[in-house]
Amino acid sequence: MQYFEDIPVGRTNSFGRYEVTREEVLDFASKYDPQGFHLDDEAAAKTHFGRISASGWHTCAMTMAMLVENMQNNRQAGLGSPGIDNLRWMKPVFPGDVLRCETTVIEKRRSRSRPEMGIFKSQIRVFNQNDEPVLEMVSNGLVQVRDPDAPIADG
Amino acid sequence: MQYFEDIPVGRTNSFGRYEVTREEVLDFASKYDPQGFHLDDEAAAKTHFGRISASGWHTCAMTMAMLVENMQNNRQAGLGSPGIDNLRWMKPVFPGDVLRCETTVIEKRRSRSRPEMGIFKSQIRVFNQNDEPVLEMVSNGLVQVRDPDAPIADG
Repeated sequence: MQYFEDIPVGRTNSFGRYEVTREEVLDFASKYDPQGFHLDDEAAAKTHFGRISASGWHTCAMTMAMLVENMQNNRQAGLGSPGIDNLRWMKPVFPGDVLRCETTVIEKRRSRSRPEMGIFKSQIRVFNQNDEPVLEMVSNGLVQVRDPDAPIADG
Repeated sequence: MQYFEDIPVGRTNSFGRYEVTREEVLDFASKYDPQGFHLDDEAAAKTHFGRISASGWHTCAMTMAMLVENMQNNRQAGLGSPGIDNLRWMKPVFPGDVLRCETTVIEKRRSRSRPEMGIFKSQIRVFNQNDEPVLEMVSNGLVQVRDPDAPIADG
């Protein structure tokens, strides 16, 4: 298992491959984001998107699928997340795009109130097949501490 | 249509009703967030969540469904969103919960580079049936300007 102690601040990981299909874009948008530019070719052509694009929340969900696959490959002892900062949808994601992920751990600290838990911040970037960034965000991840009795460093 | 000029800074709107079903929680999590505590009763019972809870990204998606319904009821001339700040999942969302939304417009400004477009920030809060906040975030919304030739105020 990968614990809090095993997460190296500063390291960048590249992983994931997510093929965006038109069927999935339409399915997600019809349930959760039924705006014309996500659902209707003609309506999308009239906007600055130019054609049907994925809901930004769908891009987040596809990103999460890549992150979870990576966590599971690393057997990371994840405990969920309290939230996300600075989420930006930088370019539209279109059916046919293929997405991938890069993450860099920015900082980490033990929880004082729950010594069995650590928290780490990661800069997450998602790119399309042309290496254009389509999404950026800073995630806050909770993870198990291997040795909860170890003293918590100041700082 | 509701344009940039019609969006009053400071006003709070309450709207939406979203019944969270176990089937939908499992469906979303199996596609996008297949962690044990979202999918498996036994695994969830061993975590601080206590039982199966919705993926945080699913809560975002359900929130978006309420936001879009409200935009469409108001015939708001929305043009998408560049991003989200300070997204926090404050409490788990469980199957059987019923969610609702409150939004307050914090500020708005015209785009200088695209005078036909305005941007407004909203504090979004989602509550469960016990009026407990489950999600908070600040959205940045793009919206059409009714009169793009009107001068852009300083500040």
